[in-house]
Amino acid sequence: MKTGFKIVICGGGSTYTPGIVKNLLDEKELRIRELWLYDIDGERQDKVARIVKEVVRTFAPELSVFVSTDAKEALTGANFIMAQMRVGKLEMRVKDEQIALRHGCIGQETCGVGGMAYGLRTIAPMIELIDLCAKYADSKHWIVNYSNPAAIVAKATTLLRPEARILNICDMPVEIEARMAEILNVKLEDLEVDYFGLNHYGWFTKVRALGEDVTEKLKEHVAQYGYISKASYEDALVKDPDWLHTFKNSSVIMKMFPDYLPNTYWQYYLLGDDIVEYSDINNTRGMQVIGGREKRVMEAARRLEMGESIDLQQFFVGVHGKFIVEVVKALAYDTRSRQLVIVPNNGAIENLPDDAMVEIPAYLTSRGPEPVRVGKIPRFYKGLIEQQDACEGLIVEGAIEQSYQKILEAFTMNRTVPSANVAKKILDEMIEANKGYWPELK
Amino acid sequence: MKTGFKIVICGGGSTYTPGIVKNLLDEKELRIRELWLYDIDGERQDKVARIVKEVVRTFAPELSVFVSTDAKEALTGANFIMAQMRVGKLEMRVKDEQIALRHGCIGQETCGVGGMAYGLRTIAPMIELIDLCAKYADSKHWIVNYSNPAAIVAKATTLLRPEARILNICDMPVEIEARMAEILNVKLEDLEVDYFGLNHYGWFTKVRALGEDVTEKLKEHVAQYGYISKASYEDALVKDPDWLHTFKNSSVIMKMFPDYLPNTYWQYYLLGDDIVEYSDINNTRGMQVIGGREKRVMEAARRLEMGESIDLQQFFVGVHGKFIVEVVKALAYDTRSRQLVIVPNNGAIENLPDDAMVEIPAYLTSRGPEPVRVGKIPRFYKGLIEQQDACEGLIVEGAIEQSYQKILEAFTMNRTVPSANVAKKILDEMIEANKGYWPELK
Amino acid sequence: MKTGFKIVICGGGSTYTPGIVKNLLDEKELRIRELWLYDIDGERQDKVARIVKEVVRTFAPELSVFVSTDAKEALTGANFIMAQMRVGKLEMRVKDEQIALRHGCIGQETCGVGGMAYGLRTIAPMIELIDLCAKYADSKHWIVNYSNPAAIVAKATTLLRPEARILNICDMPVEIEARMAEILNVKLEDLEVDYFGLNHYGWFTKVRALGEDVTEKLKEHVAQYGYISKASYEDALVKDPDWLHTFKNSSVIMKMFPDYLPNTYWQYYLLGDDIVEYSDINNTRGMQVIGGREKRVMEAARRLEMGESIDLQQFFVGVHGKFIVEVVKALAYDTRSRQLVIVPNNGAIENLPDDAMVEIPAYLTSRGPEPVRVGKIPRFYKGLIEQQDACEGLIVEGAIEQSYQKILEAFTMNRTVPSANVAKKILDEMIEANKGYWPELK
Amino acid sequence: MKTGFKIVICGGGSTYTPGIVKNLLDEKELRIRELWLYDIDGERQDKVARIVKEVVRTFAPELSVFVSTDAKEALTGANFIMAQMRVGKLEMRVKDEQIALRHGCIGQETCGVGGMAYGLRTIAPMIELIDLCAKYADSKHWIVNYSNPAAIVAKATTLLRPEARILNICDMPVEIEARMAEILNVKLEDLEVDYFGLNHYGWFTKVRALGEDVTEKLKEHVAQYGYISKASYEDALVKDPDWLHTFKNSSVIMKMFPDYLPNTYWQYYLLGDDIVEYSDINNTRGMQVIGGREKRVMEAARRLEMGESIDLQQFFVGVHGKFIVEVVKALAYDTRSRQLVIVPNNGAIENLPDDAMVEIPAYLTSRGPEPVRVGKIPRFYKGLIEQQDACEGLIVEGAIEQSYQKILEAFTMNRTVPSANVAKKILDEMIEANKGYWPELK
Repeated sequence: MKTGFKIVICGGGSTYTPGIVKNLLDEKELRIRELWLYDIDGERQDKVARIVKEVVRTFAPELSVFVSTDAKEALTGANFIMAQMRVGKLEMRVKDEQIALRHGCIGQETCGVGGMAYGLRTIAPMIELIDLCAKYADSKHWIVNYSNPAAIVAKATTLLRPEARILNICDMPVEIEARMAEILNVKLEDLEVDYFGLNHYGWFTKVRALGEDVTEKLKEHVAQYGYISKASYEDALVKDPDWLHTFKNSSVIMKMFPDYLPNTYWQYYLLGDDIVEYSDINNTRGMQVIGGREKRVMEAARRLEMGESIDLQQFFVGVHGKFIVEVVKALAYDTRSRQLVIVPNNGAIENLPDDAMVEIPAYLTSRGPEPVRVGKIPRFYKGLIEQQDACEGLIVEGAIEQSYQKILEAFTMNRTVPSANVAKKILDEMIEANKGYWPELK
Repeated sequence: MKTGFKIVICGGGSTYTPGIVKNLLDEKELRIRELWLYDIDGERQDKVARIVKEVVRTFAPELSVFVSTDAKEALTGANFIMAQMRVGKLEMRVKDEQIALRHGCIGQETCGVGGMAYGLRTIAPMIELIDLCAKYADSKHWIVNYSNPAAIVAKATTLLRPEARILNICDMPVEIEARMAEILNVKLEDLEVDYFGLNHYGWFTKVRALGEDVTEKLKEHVAQYGYISKASYEDALVKDPDWLHTFKNSSVIMKMFPDYLPNTYWQYYLLGDDIVEYSDINNTRGMQVIGGREKRVMEAARRLEMGESIDLQQFFVGVHGKFIVEVVKALAYDTRSRQLVIVPNNGAIENLPDDAMVEIPAYLTSRGPEPVRVGKIPRFYKGLIEQQDACEGLIVEGAIEQSYQKILEAFTMNRTVPSANVAKKILDEMIEANKGYWPELK
Repeated sequence: MKTGFKIVICGGGSTYTPGIVKNLLDEKELRIRELWLYDIDGERQDKVARIVKEVVRTFAPELSVFVSTDAKEALTGANFIMAQMRVGKLEMRVKDEQIALRHGCIGQETCGVGGMAYGLRTIAPMIELIDLCAKYADSKHWIVNYSNPAAIVAKATTLLRPEARILNICDMPVEIEARMAEILNVKLEDLEVDYFGLNHYGWFTKVRALGEDVTEKLKEHVAQYGYISKASYEDALVKDPDWLHTFKNSSVIMKMFPDYLPNTYWQYYLLGDDIVEYSDINNTRGMQVIGGREKRVMEAARRLEMGESIDLQQFFVGVHGKFIVEVVKALAYDTRSRQLVIVPNNGAIENLPDDAMVEIPAYLTSRGPEPVRVGKIPRFYKGLIEQQDACEGLIVEGAIEQSYQKILEAFTMNRTVPSANVAKKILDEMIEANKGYWPELK
Repeated sequence: MKTGFKIVICGGGSTYTPGIVKNLLDEKELRIRELWLYDIDGERQDKVARIVKEVVRTFAPELSVFVSTDAKEALTGANFIMAQMRVGKLEMRVKDEQIALRHGCIGQETCGVGGMAYGLRTIAPMIELIDLCAKYADSKHWIVNYSNPAAIVAKATTLLRPEARILNICDMPVEIEARMAEILNVKLEDLEVDYFGLNHYGWFTKVRALGEDVTEKLKEHVAQYGYISKASYEDALVKDPDWLHTFKNSSVIMKMFPDYLPNTYWQYYLLGDDIVEYSDINNTRGMQVIGGREKRVMEAARRLEMGESIDLQQFFVGVHGKFIVEVVKALAYDTRSRQLVIVPNNGAIENLPDDAMVEIPAYLTSRGPEPVRVGKIPRFYKGLIEQQDACEGLIVEGAIEQSYQKILEAFTMNRTVPSANVAKKILDEMIEANKGYWPELK
């Protein structure tokens, strides 16, 4: 038997790939035998692969890296498949954002109309990937999926492929925990949280630092500065008005709803008017990424091709990659690491539907996650989650049944959409824009 | 033992009172011994009472009518108490409407912010009435409550006085049924419907005319003309643009969500943007009523005082009153009439919370309603209702706990409010406007 | 269009048929066009038919009676099919009873091991009947099913043919109500009860006579005399020790568990040791019926064939038939009669599983029953019902999956079986005895 | 601040105490500052204490041991309270067993009538202990409770003192796991199980040895030999017919119900007739303990008092003690050890009532257990558990309400009792026998 794992990054052409690879290499305990990049866009992947190979050359020269657009080749015998698809690329994200903004709504790519559009693009390819893995990968493989919109994808895969060896995760909570750690001046690994919700739609109910309950202390801070230390806050005042805006919104939410610490994404569902006003249809988040990280990565690839040297450091992804690798390690070595994951509810949150895909703590074993039981949640949170869960369920059912009505119901249900009239207009334009990506609706 | 019933109209000063009394008199089987008007505003009630007495003089001269502002006197030995309170009168309704509209929201007095404000005014007086009835009324009395906002009032009374002999009803569905009958050219009493939802927040799932299922036929009509016959529609085109607007919205909703026939109120939650645009802050619904029916009633009272004769006809209320009297009769004589009523869910709609106050069919017995079990409802409808039920639950809990946070949560949760920012602004202004009426929030 | 109904009695060879027919004829409002007897055992049916024809000749000479063993002929265009099958006849009942008694258990043919055996015999033929009715009968036909074991049959038909137009009923509660009426000295039709449970496994929670709550009064009586008037009790002391034994047991149960009035069948599950002791393996209930009513019917048929006259009176069935005809009439004419029926739970009893087949009040419409929602039941009753519902569910699943294990689990679960050892012994003997009747178990 | 923990053994006079203490001393990582024995029976505790002190002198001479009958003194500042009460001592156990056997029932002291009697003795003293700990112990103390009947005690404490810092555990599953390890020839610590049920009323659904699924292999073995290796089985044939009998029963159950591996206690509820037959009213389990371990401990204490030396080895308790100490360590040091514990269900087993006290895996943290969510369980298991949960709930409610009826309902409900007649006879005798121990029933 060959020792070590074959790891495949599916969506190898992502600009995040070099950073994720760096995190994989950092984790020395994770014995990697082969590292594969797999993407359906070979041209793009080849560019990113240059940087990836440079990362490997620098940090783990002994490791073999393979690049492929052939699913069979890439997936055969794979132990871990890290799924980071972006169906339709950033170009489609921008289209979604602009359609939404034209109608006064947030294009936000996870729980808003952008997310619903994106979900409709992603369900079929994700099911295809699951089936390919079932066919070619090691029988004990795990797909670690962090493709967005995670909630919708997770709901669809659970419904359509309940036996799939897929673990759906999202790094957003751990990103926020990193900021909590900064605020508290402790190490991230010394923090532990209780959390419940749907993906990008949850709350931290408790935060402990080295076992001590620091929730109230943290709430007070967040109410004042958002998820940022006082020093950084003052720094941001000058340097990064965008981030500052998000932090200020966290502070607004914390003050209005002081029960729990919110995920930063709540600004989209609770302060949507503010977000719309703050948005620029000619400089959406998608466009910013295209003009920023996207451009930097392609430029670096070009320079590497020309034989020039580049600064690898700029592509490292910190907490995001670290978290994903931690999850892979847990599945690989049964570490029982306690992480937030996205799983079918099945009673874990007692007063939510069984088929809600909830984000809650789980102990990660080599057989998959053992989620903890959370119990009942208060009325306000239940109400918010029921609304969004209905929305996501309608998207999934609508995609499967190719039902225009159910997708319209989902758009109408969504917190970021003010009325059925607006829902219909956005939907109809998105159907046009997403031709070839969406299932045909009847 | 005296024969016949003592009936008390609580909120005797309402402009609807003469019409309701007319309906009571029409129902000859309902043996009324004494008819009482009871209100805390004696001056206003005295005016309305003049018209009432004229009605009685004309249609049932043998009946004794009593008018009182003393709860003990009015309620002692009462068999049926018809509760039609309007706490804060139309003046407060107008304030609510205008605050809402100033912030781009619907002031709508049942399920919108207006309704929440009105609910906060009404809970305490309604509990007081229940306690007074328990003390003074006949031990087998029934309070037939149709005070708005019925959903919130029903939820509060069920929580605080679970043993109260109160039946919460709303005439809106039967008003729509009357239009269905017109459309189908059948008698109202030949229609039977299946229905589910919360008050002002439900759907007709089946309509039968003389036992025959006419649902699809009716849906087609409503999709084209709304809840009005073709002839009336064309008539309305000329005469009543307001009604026409509502009918057109029913048609819009029917086309977008063709599963079930909507309550007309859905325009407020699904087409809120349209409603706001159509509204005039200087001529709100409340102001229209003040300038219309209110004025007419007061004028008629004045004329009666002057010894002039008036046209009683104008005050008769048709379906509304007929329905209420039908309910009273059912409780009085155990008729087993099948009516839509507002009851604690307790499993009737299987996938909604137990403590939701649902509006569903029930057979009315002298012991109270026997609601039918409805079973599971589809995802879209569950999502909408969960959101609204959470909102109403938070209002009730917030009122009891005097919790500013819960009321803010309720306002934020509501479908008619676009964001927490707006919720907070409206709430803070409403707190000011409702001083003396609301519980003090902390 | 022909006027009046075609009514088919399926299981026409039953000794109850003449009595049921008499009740049908008594109900003049039920316009019967044709009356059919249908049975797979033609020889036996012919004998019974002689008596039936004599009944018709006497009471409704104008009515056409048809006798058939051909499903197509009998069911074509049928409006009401009254299903009263006894698969395996009384001979199989006796076998079940004797096997059970040999192992110290009750053979009781509904909720005990006899009932489970009988259920395994009946599921397939009942499904066949449903399919035949779907094929041949009027599209708005109703099958009124009172074949035993009603609970298991109802559970199986609901699972396998959820759309079937079948209403499952049992006359046992109304038989007890007739005794209540005797005790209270009121007419049966003046009684109304609240009731919950599974078939032959329920409790009367309230009894009202002409609207007045007489529950406590009745409990006191039953605790003293069982379900019999004082006079009849004293009479029974002398004449009918068997009945007296049942009444005494009702009294024992009433005293021990004074919450509700028990169905008389509770003696089998709560006082099983007494029943076993009282039973005689050489004179079981089944044998008594064979030697009693069975013999009398066959003798009467023989005499009719010989041209002799008989006393028809002896075959009339009283309350049993009256109840069934009342149900048929309700379905035929939408009477909204309030009756106890057996329906899928779906939330009606809030803290029982959705797929339990519960016996509760329903208003009978021409579209079928509208069951009332009952709410939560106390712990003791929930515990008992959960046990029996699991048992019945396992029988149904075991029959469908042909699973020896599930049937063994059902036998083990049952309250009348003391241990898995005994369950296995009885089951294995019953498999032998029921060859050709049961699905083959693996 | 003093370093190390103050540990109190409550029920210090138990014959298990010396063994438990040995296990505590073995766990060197558990820094014990003070070890206290606390019992209300000082005389008995003093005897046991002699052996305990000898254990401490031998294995940890530096440790201070204190013996007290004063709650305040014993509990003040305590960090861990190990509760091992036996209210009424073995004498009462014997009485319960004999009453039960006289009526043909199992006296079994956890889930049978013995257990119900014992539960009624234990609830009040356990609540008292919780209150004393809340008053005197360290604010972060933990009561590790393994007093029997664990299920009933856990249910009562959760209802009456929901905020108590108590963790209810039972060593039975881990005892069986030790046998599994023997069978599989692996170390106990290399086994991991999935399990669900109530205490002494559960099943192993999966067994893994070093991560590998060995469930099927183990089932096959248990079906043949029960929970014992082939070698030991043959050994037992000669030496220990009692144990062999239990193993044979496990094998019988495994063969009949092959889904899951049963807790050995299932012989009492599934094979009760066999157990009754095997029992000897003049040599009950309680009497055997009195004549065995009880006598040995008292004799050893006497010899120590006389200055003689004794063999300590004989009092060590192996797996039982090791497990308890593992739990204490987990709470002390947040080890996240995965153990089976008894917790309120609250959705963990989706189709059981929220207030069932279920025994399931949990990760043990210093804040208490984080139970995993189990999902739905099959019908047979649900049926069995619902019955027993109702029984235990009725005992707890009956104890609190002092309700004779509820206790009779519990006795009637229990699987080990054949009828309400027998339940009543046993109950009435037990009321007599337990005077002074039970709450007075009305």
